[in-house]
Amino acid sequence: MNDLVVGGAGFIGSQLVDALLAKGDFVVVLDNFLRGKMSNLADAQKNPKFVVINGDASSVDAVKTVIKKFGIEYVFHLAANSDIQASANDPSIEFKCTASTTWAILIAMRETGVKNLFFASTSAVYGELGPHDSFSEDKSLLSPVSYYGGAKAASEAFIHSFSSMNDMHSLIFRFPNVIGRRLTHGVVFDFIERIKENPNELSVFGDGTQSKPYLHCDDLIKAILLFYKNNPVGVTLYQVGVDSCSSVRFIASSVIHEMGLDGKCQIKYGKSNVGWKGDVPHFAYSLDKITKAGWKASMSSDEAVLLTIREALGKEK
Amino acid sequence: MNDLVVGGAGFIGSQLVDALLAKGDFVVVLDNFLRGKMSNLADAQKNPKFVVINGDASSVDAVKTVIKKFGIEYVFHLAANSDIQASANDPSIEFKCTASTTWAILIAMRETGVKNLFFASTSAVYGELGPHDSFSEDKSLLSPVSYYGGAKAASEAFIHSFSSMNDMHSLIFRFPNVIGRRLTHGVVFDFIERIKENPNELSVFGDGTQSKPYLHCDDLIKAILLFYKNNPVGVTLYQVGVDSCSSVRFIASSVIHEMGLDGKCQIKYGKSNVGWKGDVPHFAYSLDKITKAGWKASMSSDEAVLLTIREALGKEK
Repeated sequence: MNDLVVGGAGFIGSQLVDALLAKGDFVVVLDNFLRGKMSNLADAQKNPKFVVINGDASSVDAVKTVIKKFGIEYVFHLAANSDIQASANDPSIEFKCTASTTWAILIAMRETGVKNLFFASTSAVYGELGPHDSFSEDKSLLSPVSYYGGAKAASEAFIHSFSSMNDMHSLIFRFPNVIGRRLTHGVVFDFIERIKENPNELSVFGDGTQSKPYLHCDDLIKAILLFYKNNPVGVTLYQVGVDSCSSVRFIASSVIHEMGLDGKCQIKYGKSNVGWKGDVPHFAYSLDKITKAGWKASMSSDEAVLLTIREALGKEK
Repeated sequence: MNDLVVGGAGFIGSQLVDALLAKGDFVVVLDNFLRGKMSNLADAQKNPKFVVINGDASSVDAVKTVIKKFGIEYVFHLAANSDIQASANDPSIEFKCTASTTWAILIAMRETGVKNLFFASTSAVYGELGPHDSFSEDKSLLSPVSYYGGAKAASEAFIHSFSSMNDMHSLIFRFPNVIGRRLTHGVVFDFIERIKENPNELSVFGDGTQSKPYLHCDDLIKAILLFYKNNPVGVTLYQVGVDSCSSVRFIASSVIHEMGLDGKCQIKYGKSNVGWKGDVPHFAYSLDKITKAGWKASMSSDEAVLLTIREALGKEK
């Protein structure tokens, strides 16, 4: 199959590219390299069935040109601003990089007749949750509290309408916090970077009790490969995740331990249990649907955190 | 209060303008006059507390300039493509006129500190319904099947995120089919226009059993005026409507009767009960929430249809 991975130079996109190439597919990456890195594609570029294009996925013409030139049959859309905190300060990032890219890709697919789409959505579409509830893809309404979640929820709405109007087979995964090698932001990445700058003290947002599920990218890619083919016309939706959480305190102490700074680097906590506006402090969602469909993460959240720290420090490949 | 009505030259917007002026508010209309008509504002223009501006609401600068110049305190956003069939052929209309205007208005409100928003959404955000279900704003998921519904659902998602991030008080109404004077499209309008062209025969999409609730604009405006003030921070959502339906057969025969063509104009039906792709043949939603909050339509759907036909034919003001 001929695949287009939009945002394929990014943290998750590039690992999907490697996996699709390993299956024997022909893979084209379209990326604007705002966050994506050519170095993420170093392995892919050794493969003769791989092409990378530096272009703007919010341009219908750019996407159509790639689809036509390479006979694309499946579009994986992973292009987005992936940093909630960055767009909290400048929401226009989300319109340009997330909502507009989805729209342009859908128009390009409509005009070229491509029928298969994978879209990387997010658990941030849901918004805030009561302390004893759990989000479900078949029951929970969307009331996103961040611009990031808003633009992803908007993208999902566009995909519903285009899938219905054009008989597209669309698969949407709502990603949790995904970590692993090639990570460029987020709490694990930030803690490592900040301790490198100052090995004596680590200040964290909030009181450290914030707890979220972290899925390792290897597990996520396996889930995509398991479900991306043979979906019915319309939208098939799964939230993907892990049934355990890791606290900020666990992450901070694990980073310090793996960096060999136990007893040397002090953790300085804030007061609130909310890190920043738009953040969701406590998070849980039902994994019943994807579990029943036959997928389960191989690593717990804490195992994913530990492996990611070791990968970031070069201790694991 | 100083109000901005975006899309205020349109069918519904202009009647909201008249109502706000009647309450004594200062009202500014921003409209691009693609579908809006200056003639809809003939009464308003006699009022010294009224200003109309021909401009593009998808431009953040245009919206900000108006907000600042007139000290706007409340934004009513009724700008949208309102013709589902038109955008079925050219979906880009929905991105430009619906999704992008919502985004630009929200950015402009954020940057000028305006906290009060009314947004005209639509029952088309829900998508298709099983024959025995009913849509509820507190329970039903959104899976729009038209580009129109997709762009409105996307707008709702943007509004959720901006309301949360900027402490805005947002009121969203999901409109049903709204009819009444100044109507520019839709089945009642189309039937009258087509019979004027050919008084001997009226061809209708589908078999005529399609049945939908039609709300008269007078009732809708009363609902907006009842709920637009004193909403909490975040999104307050109501679906507004009428607890009865009118069939295409009723509308067709009523138009023929009111035009004095009984026995002269023959109705020619199609075969399917779906009029066009993206249309939702059977439609019902719960009005429990808005009923409990104290509003009920004064006219039944059939009464609204009959009054609208008479208004369109100049028999009623």
